[in-house]
Amino acid sequence: MDTTGKKTLIVFSGDFDRAMAAFIIANGAAAMGDEVTMFFTFWGLNILRKPEKIKTQKSSLQAMFGRMMPRGAGRLGLSKMNFGGMGAPMMKKVMKQQNAMTLEQLIESAKEQDVKFVACTLSMDIMGFKEEELIDGLEFAGVGSYLGEADEANVNLFI
Amino acid sequence: MDTTGKKTLIVFSGDFDRAMAAFIIANGAAAMGDEVTMFFTFWGLNILRKPEKIKTQKSSLQAMFGRMMPRGAGRLGLSKMNFGGMGAPMMKKVMKQQNAMTLEQLIESAKEQDVKFVACTLSMDIMGFKEEELIDGLEFAGVGSYLGEADEANVNLFI
Amino acid sequence: MDTTGKKTLIVFSGDFDRAMAAFIIANGAAAMGDEVTMFFTFWGLNILRKPEKIKTQKSSLQAMFGRMMPRGAGRLGLSKMNFGGMGAPMMKKVMKQQNAMTLEQLIESAKEQDVKFVACTLSMDIMGFKEEELIDGLEFAGVGSYLGEADEANVNLFI
Repeated sequence: MDTTGKKTLIVFSGDFDRAMAAFIIANGAAAMGDEVTMFFTFWGLNILRKPEKIKTQKSSLQAMFGRMMPRGAGRLGLSKMNFGGMGAPMMKKVMKQQNAMTLEQLIESAKEQDVKFVACTLSMDIMGFKEEELIDGLEFAGVGSYLGEADEANVNLFI
Repeated sequence: MDTTGKKTLIVFSGDFDRAMAAFIIANGAAAMGDEVTMFFTFWGLNILRKPEKIKTQKSSLQAMFGRMMPRGAGRLGLSKMNFGGMGAPMMKKVMKQQNAMTLEQLIESAKEQDVKFVACTLSMDIMGFKEEELIDGLEFAGVGSYLGEADEANVNLFI
Repeated sequence: MDTTGKKTLIVFSGDFDRAMAAFIIANGAAAMGDEVTMFFTFWGLNILRKPEKIKTQKSSLQAMFGRMMPRGAGRLGLSKMNFGGMGAPMMKKVMKQQNAMTLEQLIESAKEQDVKFVACTLSMDIMGFKEEELIDGLEFAGVGSYLGEADEANVNLFI
């Protein structure tokens, strides 16, 4: 039995803790020689947003969604014990005490290890995100592309 | 390597956004010729509820759970930014602007493509749902049935 | 095609309902003769905490996290309709009326069926959990160990 292989992760959640889990798995698999593709859908797209405000053409509802959702990996909240936004900074402080890699470092490391980042185009339409609002180096594709890759992978997770 | 195959989705969540993700994947896979089975457990059963009130024999606690949970796909909330129930209508409005399929259309399309809907009987007991409260065309089974199908599938997700 | 095989579950969530789902699947698979490994990460570690207070060396932030998170399977909340902590007792009462197994019984049964429990060491560092705070019979390992097992499994879920 071939014990290595391709991995796909659907990153649906935009919570800091779930994003951490996704990138820890992605980096681990890439370090073991696996091909890894991460599909960012719905709230997961927030992880890929550039931190600065980008002017784009949006409907007023899309613009409102955009204003209320976090811009990028540095501003995500926790799925539990968020404490009005204080939970993530607290967890980051503990992580620093433990010399754990930051989410930003994990994202950088995943890129360096050639983990493929795919932004779901249907989710981008629904959430109102334009390509220029998201970080560089992404591919843009839909569910068909995901399924094609998942068919070739031996581990597929929905996070 | 056979690059198509069976897919199973455990739909544990009853959030509108996660239900959308589940049915987008299910429809995409079915369109590519895959056999797809969706197992609805816990809150995911809410997606399958008929919108009208159905009189059934329940314990008072089950009846209370039933009253407080959404009746069907049209009444689900968002997992994030629910805004006291306003989040889902806002997302639906954006989806309409984008000509995206509604959740109800995705469910209908999944049925037409012979996606198999299985309601978890243990969850039904716990949540107090009777068969007559749920939409037509379901199968009813437990975890053994799920595992049997997952063993034959090449992509298994928990949503 | 071999229709049985190994299963891995990442138990990321510490919610009562998601923990129930994880252990129902684990017990079902073990009963069918599958080898099952459960990896407890982040909030999922709360399921493994001993119910009593254990004195350990922690940073003040870790100690605070520890105080605010539930100590063990008996104190978990619901992911939805938690009602300030009343949701889980209500669900447990319905489960008792239905003669469903409790979470504690499912955990015990999983152990008896040789389901392997692995606590994620990186998560333990971040959450500030020490081995002596967690129940007996655990293994301790990181993401590499998970990936090695997932490579050998035919069903891998993230819960």
